[in-house]
Amino acid sequence: MTQEFASTLLENAVTELSRLPGVGRKTALRYALHLLRQPQEQSEALGRAIIGMREGIRYCSVCHNISETEICPICSSPSRDGSTVCVVESVKDVMSIERTGQFTGLYHVLGGVISPMDGIGPDQLEIDSLVERVKAGGVREVILALSATMEGETTDFYIFRRLGALQVEVTQLARGVSVGNEIEYTDEITLGRSLLNRTPFEQSLRR
Amino acid sequence: MTQEFASTLLENAVTELSRLPGVGRKTALRYALHLLRQPQEQSEALGRAIIGMREGIRYCSVCHNISETEICPICSSPSRDGSTVCVVESVKDVMSIERTGQFTGLYHVLGGVISPMDGIGPDQLEIDSLVERVKAGGVREVILALSATMEGETTDFYIFRRLGALQVEVTQLARGVSVGNEIEYTDEITLGRSLLNRTPFEQSLRR
Repeated sequence: MTQEFASTLLENAVTELSRLPGVGRKTALRYALHLLRQPQEQSEALGRAIIGMREGIRYCSVCHNISETEICPICSSPSRDGSTVCVVESVKDVMSIERTGQFTGLYHVLGGVISPMDGIGPDQLEIDSLVERVKAGGVREVILALSATMEGETTDFYIFRRLGALQVEVTQLARGVSVGNEIEYTDEITLGRSLLNRTPFEQSLRR
Repeated sequence: MTQEFASTLLENAVTELSRLPGVGRKTALRYALHLLRQPQEQSEALGRAIIGMREGIRYCSVCHNISETEICPICSSPSRDGSTVCVVESVKDVMSIERTGQFTGLYHVLGGVISPMDGIGPDQLEIDSLVERVKAGGVREVILALSATMEGETTDFYIFRRLGALQVEVTQLARGVSVGNEIEYTDEITLGRSLLNRTPFEQSLRR
C-alpha cells in the first residue's frame, strides 16, 4: 500500500480522508492532491479547524444539540419559549427548523429514530431524558418533528406512549401536499392524509 | 452565517471542508457532523494527517513527482532505467503507470498540459526542465504519455518540437481500441489510428 503512493505521509492522509462518509480512496486521493497544490496555510487551516471543532464542541446537557457550552445558546436564550419542545432526530434537523424562522420554542435531539433493522432501540436514543424533562414540569407541548417514515412514525408512537401519563400535549408536524408539488404527482397516502387534515382556507391567506 | 450553525467552531470547519474540490457546504456539513459523532482521536488523526502531509511533502527536484525527500524514490532507485523518461501530466498519472508494472524508466511530471482556454502556456509547465534534463545527457528515449485530447496532443507536439534538435528518440503511447471495448462502439478516429498502427499478431500472443 505504501508503494501505491510513494509517500507514507500521502498514504496516511488518504487513509484518514477516506474515513469520511461516502469518500472512497479515489476521492480521498483527489482531496489530498488538491491540498498539496494549495498554499500550505490552507491545509493547516483545515487540519486545525477539524481538530478544534472536535475538541471544542460537546452536546448541550438539556437538548443534546451540539454546543460550545454546557447549555446551548437556544436552551439558555431568554427569548425562547420553554413551554414548547420540538423533538427532532438530529442536529441537522434543528438547523432546518431554525431556518424556517417559524419556531420559537426549544428542541430535544433524539440522536436517531427507533430502527430494529439497524439495531437501534429506544435505549440508544435520548427518550428517557425527554420524559425526565417533561416530568420536571414547565413543558406544555411536545411537537414530534421526526421523519414521516416507518421508523419515524414508530418512534413518534413510542414517545407518545411514554408521555401518555404526563400532563402534556403531544402534536406532530402536519402531513400534506408539499408546497410547489402538483396533486398529480403526490402519492395517495399523503393525499389521503392531507384530505383528512384539511385546514380552513383563511389560514393560508394569513401567510 | 454563524447563526446558521450555532457554533463558530462548526462553521469554521464547514468553511474549510467546503474548499475541497467538489465539496459544497451541504457535504462539508455532513463530513463535520460525521466527525463529531466519531471518537475524538479520529478527528485528531485526520487533522494531523492533513497538516503533516502538507508540511512533509515536496516535489522531486528531478522529475517533479511528489516526494518526502529532495530526490524521489523512483529517481534515486538504482534499479530504474535512467535512459527512458516518461512524460506525464500529473502525479496521479505516475501512480497509474506504476500500477501497470510495465515501466521501469523514470518520469517527468509536467504539472498540466498546454491549454490556452485555461491560460496555461508552456512556461507554467515543467517543459524547460525536461529539455534541460535531456540536454544533460543519458536520456535515450522520451515517451509522451499525455491525454489523447486536443490539449494533450498540442503539448505532445510542442515538446516534440522543443526536443527536435537533441539526440533523443521521442515516442508516444499507442492509440487504439481499449481492451474490452467492442469495435461497434469505438469512435472512428480511434479506429482509424488503430488500423494505421496495427501490430503483428504474435505480439499479443506474448502477453
